[in-house]
Amino acid sequence: MYVAEILTVGNEILSGRTVNTNASHIARRLTSLGFAVRRMTVVMDDVREISQAFSEIFSRKPNLVVSTGGLGPTYDDRTAEGLANAVGLPLVYNEEALRQIKEKYDKLNLDLTEERKKMALMPKGSMPVENDKGIAPGIYLQYQGIEILATPGVPREMEAVLEVFISRYLKQRPNVAYVEDSVVVDGVMESTIAPHIAKLVKKYDLYIKTHPKGYELSNPTLEIQIAGSSDSAEKIVEKVRKCKEEIIALVRELGGTIRTQ
Amino acid sequence: MYVAEILTVGNEILSGRTVNTNASHIARRLTSLGFAVRRMTVVMDDVREISQAFSEIFSRKPNLVVSTGGLGPTYDDRTAEGLANAVGLPLVYNEEALRQIKEKYDKLNLDLTEERKKMALMPKGSMPVENDKGIAPGIYLQYQGIEILATPGVPREMEAVLEVFISRYLKQRPNVAYVEDSVVVDGVMESTIAPHIAKLVKKYDLYIKTHPKGYELSNPTLEIQIAGSSDSAEKIVEKVRKCKEEIIALVRELGGTIRTQ
Repeated sequence: MYVAEILTVGNEILSGRTVNTNASHIARRLTSLGFAVRRMTVVMDDVREISQAFSEIFSRKPNLVVSTGGLGPTYDDRTAEGLANAVGLPLVYNEEALRQIKEKYDKLNLDLTEERKKMALMPKGSMPVENDKGIAPGIYLQYQGIEILATPGVPREMEAVLEVFISRYLKQRPNVAYVEDSVVVDGVMESTIAPHIAKLVKKYDLYIKTHPKGYELSNPTLEIQIAGSSDSAEKIVEKVRKCKEEIIALVRELGGTIRTQ
Repeated sequence: MYVAEILTVGNEILSGRTVNTNASHIARRLTSLGFAVRRMTVVMDDVREISQAFSEIFSRKPNLVVSTGGLGPTYDDRTAEGLANAVGLPLVYNEEALRQIKEKYDKLNLDLTEERKKMALMPKGSMPVENDKGIAPGIYLQYQGIEILATPGVPREMEAVLEVFISRYLKQRPNVAYVEDSVVVDGVMESTIAPHIAKLVKKYDLYIKTHPKGYELSNPTLEIQIAGSSDSAEKIVEKVRKCKEEIIALVRELGGTIRTQ
């Protein structure tokens, strides 16, 4: 089992001003690669909070940590510093990052001010991860067997840096196939199907979850999600297919109808 | 300063299948009341993970913890159990919760099965918080001076339970006024305005944050958020107004234009 954690840095998430779609994107992408995302954390733009959160994550020994936010040019972008503190390494100008940043501003004849240079500050020994949708590069670091990627908080930049990281840097890759499927059913209450689902989970060792979409009592609609991963793509596809068939039969037995499958 | 934390329980958030809009809603609502939401956490539908997360939150001594998810009738709804473990209290059937649940199923001549009764299991001494959009009541508990509210994960049910809690149960209320405003500007790079914003933050002791909406180099658009709270509504309104005026003047000096204010 390859375990990942996601850290989001940003007061705008904590105030509810911004929905944390970045964490969802990273989670979907890592799940599709076969990682189990075990925890998500959101902390303020505060260097002690960031450092504390990284330290707590490291103590749980995941294989991979992806952070988003706090890599820009402003005073409240403190992720690089928080990460440096957590791994006990000095924060230094990364030459390659500085070169990438300078090149971008040079094209517009703009000076490399302190604020712009700041985006090249990384824990010593980090690898910058190219950001082709913005300025601040991502930060890739290995620490006690944990791979760490820090990405910017602007969604398109986060996505770009994440993809470069996955294709060029990520070392620990789950050798599993992940399959997910779902059925939407009408006319069965979540509380009615619950004991049957519990039995199917045991029987198939799959992740099965009912997502209520309608009204439990008057007009119940459920999306039933079935997911699992395995070393063998063939095996997991077959297992999910069989389980889904059994769920469809079960729903009909309970008087429900299948809306989509 | 009244500090709150938010805990979301649900594998569907960790797989990226569902965006954590519940946490955002709770955050917005608590921020509007004057709370500082210091951290958000998302954990799996696993009783040890839930219990561990609650314990970690309690160790940081917030005034208020709001959780969402894991209160339904299914085998993987484990929040009540995780909370009971974290506070060291037995999980018992709450008579009032049982009455509320029975009443809802009685109306449809439905039996109170084990799965349905399960929604009345709460840490001993909890207060059920009425859920008028669904079945599972919320759970209100006080522990070591911390107020804890557990809400269901279905958004409309979470919202309903949260509002009942705020209007009828919440004891620790910040006596502050919270004000938030913003300006959208074109033609100023985030890295250009960054040192000026840093000075304004010091001058006004307000939360000022630049949210890049365009492209830093070719076509920069920034939303500049200004927020703060104070004992005096009059004072904070005036402070945010003055700071906003200064930002608008600054943007014009830097060659930018005001899109909306």
